[in-house]
Amino acid sequence: MSTSDSIKSLEALHPAHPHYDHSRPHVVIIGGGFAGLEFAKGLMHEKVDVTMVDKHNYHTFQPLLYQVATGGLEPDSIAYPLRKVFRKAKNVYVRWANVKHIDIETQTLSTSLCEIHYDYLVIATGSTSRFFNFENIQDKMLTLKSVPDALNLRSYILQNFEKATAEQNPEYFQELINIAVVGGGPTGLELAGALGEMKQQILPLDYPEVDLTKMRIVLFQAGNDLLAGMSDLASEKSLKYIKELGVEVRLNDRVSEYDGDVLKTEGGFQMRTDTLIWTAGVKATFPDGLPEASINKGRISVDRFNKVVGVDNVYAIGDVAEMATEDTPHGHPMVAPVAQQQGKHLAKNLVNIMAGKETKPFTYNDKGSMATIGRNRAVVDLPNYSFSGFFAWLTWMFVHVALLAGFRNKIAALFDWIVNYFTFDSPMRLIIRPFREEGVGTDTSLKETLKR
Amino acid sequence: MSTSDSIKSLEALHPAHPHYDHSRPHVVIIGGGFAGLEFAKGLMHEKVDVTMVDKHNYHTFQPLLYQVATGGLEPDSIAYPLRKVFRKAKNVYVRWANVKHIDIETQTLSTSLCEIHYDYLVIATGSTSRFFNFENIQDKMLTLKSVPDALNLRSYILQNFEKATAEQNPEYFQELINIAVVGGGPTGLELAGALGEMKQQILPLDYPEVDLTKMRIVLFQAGNDLLAGMSDLASEKSLKYIKELGVEVRLNDRVSEYDGDVLKTEGGFQMRTDTLIWTAGVKATFPDGLPEASINKGRISVDRFNKVVGVDNVYAIGDVAEMATEDTPHGHPMVAPVAQQQGKHLAKNLVNIMAGKETKPFTYNDKGSMATIGRNRAVVDLPNYSFSGFFAWLTWMFVHVALLAGFRNKIAALFDWIVNYFTFDSPMRLIIRPFREEGVGTDTSLKETLKR
Repeated sequence: MSTSDSIKSLEALHPAHPHYDHSRPHVVIIGGGFAGLEFAKGLMHEKVDVTMVDKHNYHTFQPLLYQVATGGLEPDSIAYPLRKVFRKAKNVYVRWANVKHIDIETQTLSTSLCEIHYDYLVIATGSTSRFFNFENIQDKMLTLKSVPDALNLRSYILQNFEKATAEQNPEYFQELINIAVVGGGPTGLELAGALGEMKQQILPLDYPEVDLTKMRIVLFQAGNDLLAGMSDLASEKSLKYIKELGVEVRLNDRVSEYDGDVLKTEGGFQMRTDTLIWTAGVKATFPDGLPEASINKGRISVDRFNKVVGVDNVYAIGDVAEMATEDTPHGHPMVAPVAQQQGKHLAKNLVNIMAGKETKPFTYNDKGSMATIGRNRAVVDLPNYSFSGFFAWLTWMFVHVALLAGFRNKIAALFDWIVNYFTFDSPMRLIIRPFREEGVGTDTSLKETLKR
Repeated sequence: MSTSDSIKSLEALHPAHPHYDHSRPHVVIIGGGFAGLEFAKGLMHEKVDVTMVDKHNYHTFQPLLYQVATGGLEPDSIAYPLRKVFRKAKNVYVRWANVKHIDIETQTLSTSLCEIHYDYLVIATGSTSRFFNFENIQDKMLTLKSVPDALNLRSYILQNFEKATAEQNPEYFQELINIAVVGGGPTGLELAGALGEMKQQILPLDYPEVDLTKMRIVLFQAGNDLLAGMSDLASEKSLKYIKELGVEVRLNDRVSEYDGDVLKTEGGFQMRTDTLIWTAGVKATFPDGLPEASINKGRISVDRFNKVVGVDNVYAIGDVAEMATEDTPHGHPMVAPVAQQQGKHLAKNLVNIMAGKETKPFTYNDKGSMATIGRNRAVVDLPNYSFSGFFAWLTWMFVHVALLAGFRNKIAALFDWIVNYFTFDSPMRLIIRPFREEGVGTDTSLKETLKR
């Protein structure tokens, strides 16, 4: 690694930055998600320059995206500008850019903004939706992986209800108001629960002219259980709760066909719907340039220290990293706590590497998991104890407020939740996307417009 | 007017509405702005069916759009879902649709949703930007007339700052960070003030690597005074305040040329900027179908009762309506209070018309006007008294909170303002538009993408 190259590149990248120091190693982290955030925070007071590159200018608190999608929270409450997070860090620089290619020979990234040379590179680019054999029709489906996704979803459902008010054809009316959620993991379950509440509490007030007894919300789960990764109690209770909210659940059934209008399953089930929300799978996503030997089934192979196998000075953390150990032959689960712990751990290790000291292998400390299904209902798995119901819901609420970044967001989310709780009525229902001058109701398919 | 036609059309429009009553006249109001809202509220307990049609599903509190554009407020605080406003009204139906054509013979509207027959029609479609001789280059400019506009503007400015962090070419760097605001009315002035505050307080913290001494915010006003419609005190003080915020003001100068990169004025002034925000004019906007004799210089000619001249059963209120009187030979100013008062007044008159009673001509009661220029600074004109400074700012704040629709929005806005006031730091800075899968920095011009 050439230090002079690194300096030249840094000067170009940070031409006028008052804190920039020529003599320090340059660590580049791609991605400001849970992993990247913890990693960069861990280096805030160390003798390195850290450049964080992300395709958004904000960190997204993904566990609450479903609340933005269903109008319970505003997007600004669950997203936090990255520049603000690192405002007080004198050695962390944030850049809004798309990384296109990693050149591991010259240790340079090609990005949409400029070229960036690294001394150490950390890949924390997370995951995106995995459509399996539906890759070719993904334009017909909606997803919930980002703030724009969530806003799209919210507008999309409301737009369809507006259209339903004047729809005379019963089949197309059905198509507009039905919703299919594919995937019985936490995202699909929590979203279906919030939609069920919307159907019970908000839609009857806002759309008295739409016959809601005809509306179906169906949750599809390929396996035997909802929340397959959690305890039996969690699976049982969540099934009970979600049914109480009027959501139909199809277990052991898989969507086999969808043409934008009609959904069919392997089990012979069939329904009309314009709204299919896909939460059934995720896959790692990262820039190209890594050797094939470093990639295994779509994830980046790393050793116990999160170093990418076969590549010098490059690390991977979070969803993208597959650390195969005896306990985790296929890597760790692609969840936020793993990402956070790997980020924190790698920051410590990297400081030791640069100081020529010993490093420690990563071990995952599973503190448990939780999911909420509507008001007063949640399931919580602690390492040795599982519980559900109102107290679980309070736990869920407390933990999520505590995890939100920033004082303003904590208060704003808490305020909206309290208002929603007592009024049974979440306030955010603006159709703000898409905006086209010709307005609503042109011939272009809405879904395609929404997803662009 | 045929009552049976009206019933047929209403049945199609409200097929399953539980409150729908066949025997009542059908009043259709196009537009849920200040005029439309007051009008429909005025008919909430009368024996009519009111259908409100709007191209947004929410009412926009336009006076605070500039705060959304500069990140001081979230969009959900200044917009309010129309269905929620009229939830308790058993005779007001809201429809999200674009009205394309008015057929005054058959008393039918063609909309993107369905055909709508009216017994009485009220046009309250407001105004849009007026570009004068810049009509052909309006795609190169930004505007501030709607929530999507405001979100675009916010994202646009931040995107340019992100790009500026890596820009080596000094001219293009200048282009990215400079901002031109055209129009010295309340919108341009308040926006320029908020931008000036952003430059002083927020940008230095978020973009330490950008040399802000090079950033210029220039406000262009064709006439002699800012806030031309207000008192001399208001014009003088607002000029003083806006300069204190670091905004350059060019009075008596007009933009003559803009190619997306360089702006030139008639007075020979020239600056590079990628960001030209146009607030210099508005014009009425309404569906076609009215006879030419009813239209004068782009506005709809109405009599003293807001009835459209020469057309039966059709009324116009707010910005679209030109009511030429002795006091107002060119109609009333296109401002919110006129719209609200006309809406309220017409509702009363219409009830009287339907009851065969006498109607009263409209008179405008000018209660004064105000504008705010940054923290602690505002100008207020009451009918017989003008004042400025901190107390004017408190007045501004109090009035605007009181005017915001809904308890949640009042509290949310107040909360954000208090946080901003004490932290000198508004929290909303997400670049959420545009979202394109290929991400940032493709070759497409950002401005065109943003404005679509």
